[in-house]
Parts: sequence; C-alpha cells; structure tokens
Amino acid sequence: MTRAEEMTSGNDNRMPREPAAAAALVERYRREPGAGPLPWNEVLATLLSHRIVRAYRPDPVPAPVLAMAMAAAQSASTSSNLQVWSVVAVEDRERKARLAELAGRQRHIEECPLFLVWLADLSRLRVLGAERGKPTTGLDYLEGLMLGVVDATLAAQNAVAAFESLGYGTVYIGGMRDRPEDVAQVLGLPPDVVAVFGLCVGRPDETRPASVKPRLPVEAVLHREQYAGPVPAALVADYDAALRSFQAEQGMTQSGWSDTMLHRVRGPEALSGRDRLREALVARGFGLK
Amino acid sequence: MTRAEEMTSGNDNRMPREPAAAAALVERYRREPGAGPLPWNEVLATLLSHRIVRAYRPDPVPAPVLAMAMAAAQSASTSSNLQVWSVVAVEDRERKARLAELAGRQRHIEECPLFLVWLADLSRLRVLGAERGKPTTGLDYLEGLMLGVVDATLAAQNAVAAFESLGYGTVYIGGMRDRPEDVAQVLGLPPDVVAVFGLCVGRPDETRPASVKPRLPVEAVLHREQYAGPVPAALVADYDAALRSFQAEQGMTQSGWSDTMLHRVRGPEALSGRDRLREALVARGFGLK
Repeated sequence: MTRAEEMTSGNDNRMPREPAAAAALVERYRREPGAGPLPWNEVLATLLSHRIVRAYRPDPVPAPVLAMAMAAAQSASTSSNLQVWSVVAVEDRERKARLAELAGRQRHIEECPLFLVWLADLSRLRVLGAERGKPTTGLDYLEGLMLGVVDATLAAQNAVAAFESLGYGTVYIGGMRDRPEDVAQVLGLPPDVVAVFGLCVGRPDETRPASVKPRLPVEAVLHREQYAGPVPAALVADYDAALRSFQAEQGMTQSGWSDTMLHRVRGPEALSGRDRLREALVARGFGLK
Repeated sequence: MTRAEEMTSGNDNRMPREPAAAAALVERYRREPGAGPLPWNEVLATLLSHRIVRAYRPDPVPAPVLAMAMAAAQSASTSSNLQVWSVVAVEDRERKARLAELAGRQRHIEECPLFLVWLADLSRLRVLGAERGKPTTGLDYLEGLMLGVVDATLAAQNAVAAFESLGYGTVYIGGMRDRPEDVAQVLGLPPDVVAVFGLCVGRPDETRPASVKPRLPVEAVLHREQYAGPVPAALVADYDAALRSFQAEQGMTQSGWSDTMLHRVRGPEALSGRDRLREALVARGFGLK
C-alpha cells in the first residue's frame, strides 16, 4: 500500500481533497506546503479555519447548540476522570458588563450573547470529601491547579470546535485572570474554584469579518526526538514578515511578532494584574504546595 | 424563523441528523436527552465519540497526518499570540521505553508508534530576549506557567480532534509530570521548558476496542449566571451508578466514581511524585512568583 492509499483508506472522514488542505496550510503559515498528498475532512476544515471573532450579532445561542458544545466539552479527556472543571454561562447583560470591566474593558464580553467562564474546580471533590469525612489533601499541591487548568482547557477547546462547526465565533479572554477575586465575587465562586479564562460566543457579525492569523513555522514548535534548541533567527524573521503582511491587510500597526511579544513579557507592569495570580489563588483556597 | 430552522440554516456543516446526535448523548451521559432538535455534523460526531485508546497497531503515523495535526494544533488560540508551547515527537523505541518507565511503566507509551510530549515553552521568548538585550521578567510569575500550560493544552486538544478525525486513537499521559527533571533530560529540554503531558498516537488495535466513558451529568458542571453550589448527592449517586454499569461492561472493578476519585486525591502519597512538581518547575527555571 502506498502512503497515499494508506492515508485515504480505512476511514470515511478522510478525503483526498488536497487543494483545500494545501490552501488552508498556506493561509495558516503563509508559505507553500511540501509536495505530496494531504488528508482533509470537515474536522480539519473547522480546526484550521479558526479565527478570533470579537464582533457578534446579538442573537442568543440556542439551548441545543450549548447542549452539544457542552457534550463535546465533557467528551474531552480529563485526568483520571477527575473532571475537576466547571463552566459558568453568563447571558445577563449587566453581569457581562461587570466581567468586561474586570477584564480591562473588553466590549466584546458585554456584546457577545453568551459568555462562558471556564473554571478550574477542585471544590466538587473537596465538598464530597468533607461530606464523607475523607481527606483531600492531594489537591493542595501545584499539581491540583495543573489538573484543573488542563481539564478546563481541554474541555473549552472541544467546545470551541463544536461552536465553530455550527457557525458560531469565539474569542478566549485571558483577562479573567487579571482580577480573580473580583471575578469570583461576580460569579459566586466557592473556595477551590478559579476562572482560567473566559470565552465569548455568538454569531459573527459578517460586516466585520475576522481573518486567519498566521502562526510560527511548524519547525519552530515541532521537535524530533529531542528539543532542537533555539529557533534560528531567519525563521523568526520570516514569521515577523508574515505577521507584518497580515497586520497590513488588517489595517493594524505592522509591529510583527518578536518585538511585540518581548514587549508583552517585559515585566510585571505588562501583566495587567496577573503578577498577583499566585496570591489570588492562595486566597481562593489553592494550596500550590 | 423557528429555532429548528435557525439551527439548520446558514452553515453547511449543520445537519439535522437528530437520531445520531441523541444516540451520542445517550452514550456519553447514559440518560435520555431532552426532546427537541439537536444539531449534528462530522465535527460533533468526532468530538463526542472520543475514547481512550491504549492498544495500538504498530504502523507509523504518516508525515502528512502529523503535518495536518500540527496545523490544527497551531490553529488553536494562544494567549496574545505568544505561542509559548512546543511539542517533541518521539518515535524511537528506546526513547519511548525510557519515557514509559518515567510515567510509571505505561506500556502503551512504548507500543504506540508516535508519542508526542507537549511542552510549556517559555524558552523561545527567553532566548529571543537575551539575544536582543531585552528583559523577559514578565515570564517569572505563576502566570507564565499558566500561559504555557493553557497554550500547550489548547494545541494538543486540536491535534487530538485532528488525529481522531483521521482514524487515529490517542491517550493523554499526565505521568509526564511524575518525574519532570528526568523527562527533561531524556528530551534534552532547555531551562524554562517543561512537559505538561504526553500523548500516545496510533491506529487503534481493533481486537481490543475502546468505549465511550460516561461523564458527570451536564448540570453538575454547567452553571447559569453564577456558580450553583455543591452537586446534589442524588446526581453523584446517578453518575456512580452509570460508571459502575460502564465498568461492568468493560470487565473492570465496579468502583463507581466518587470513591475512586476521593482515593485519588487522598494525599501526596497518591500523586506519583507530583507533590514535587513545584520544586521541579523551579529547578527547570520557572519563577512561579
């Protein structure tokens, strides 16, 4: 069996629609993919066409759409089946406005019809343990936070794929970590629960279309057998150029990538309050030992 | 426009294949979904049918399949476009065997044709800053770890959906956090880089089929407007029963959910070394301030 045959056999989802696959790679990386066959299907089409949507139509997200997105989220893997995550669905305009304020005045949080706040949730097991007189001190370590963050993120990303497959747009809101105690107050979070990020959901406003943002060349992030060492300067320069060309098309400042990123991580003053995250998590009951 | 019409218009992916959607929900939750229309498409079908695969055929994963999974991974959102993640693809049998050993002797790590180790990678920006004489002290906070873990997890979950859509099976390996320094040594990781989890990838061995594992009822994880408080005992009991019935079908010990989970978080002795995670991260260069 040739590699091409191997790739198109055995699963009905896999269709040798090479031109669409190659086009999607060009859009994502802004360079030509290598020769040879590429697999393609509706799932890849959905995932590769992801774009940030910050302009929404006001139509509410129908209950069956949220139900299927939740089933997708819950179908994601979870460490040891612990399921140490939860999500709060916020539709109330006033509450969304308060959360928008806490995330540095991001208007799309107020304007999207559905705002989902994804939580690392150790409370469910903590309360269960307390009710049954069982210790839960295994949660008091940094590992407890990791479990919750990974579980919540796996779930959220499945929900994003589900929403996008149904014609909805999304944008993650890391700003839910700017002021974790205030977010907890607005959402009535118990101890041992913290917001990992938010997610705006809604129908994209087609009068303000979003575009696929180029990413680092794959060889900058994919290592073979062992970590390959620093990214060659030429690759960074190529990507800076690709991003500047994207920014020009979008009417944005052509700042490229590397300088912008170094500005973003220059010090605590650039963290929008997240230099306090550790303190806030301890206040929320996380052990972080 | 009725809600049913609204749900099936405007996007070719959305097909009113209600019976398949309802069947997928029954399999995932082990109870009947509410009445009414449900959206359905190939993406939802892939996501909802996720199952853990630990038995693999030895066939290598073809390069174009990995290329498309990587493109899916890189298409996922990343905080501020920082892209603070990397992945090491391990195919060498000896190296997989060493990683299997470090994760508590999980044979499937050795037996899967492709083992991906997903990394929180602050090194790329750290090195870039050093080269250009720019400070990167914004990475020295717990928030830096969060960025890397969230970025790596969003990427990995997109890769999982891509692989599964192409007929491959996967299982996440949290055991990469059991002995982070040893994993770093095997993979040649530089400072500021740590394994978040591994992922086995390969064709499922159809002589040892995997099943969809039931999850908590949706109302236990989805809260409306504010956090709803502890999960009612009756819901936990329902889920314990659902999981026991799954375990019986699988020929597993019928331990249910709640007791098993409380055993899993009872204390540091149940963390397989991950009570040392904080110390190991600090040794790897993470500030965690």
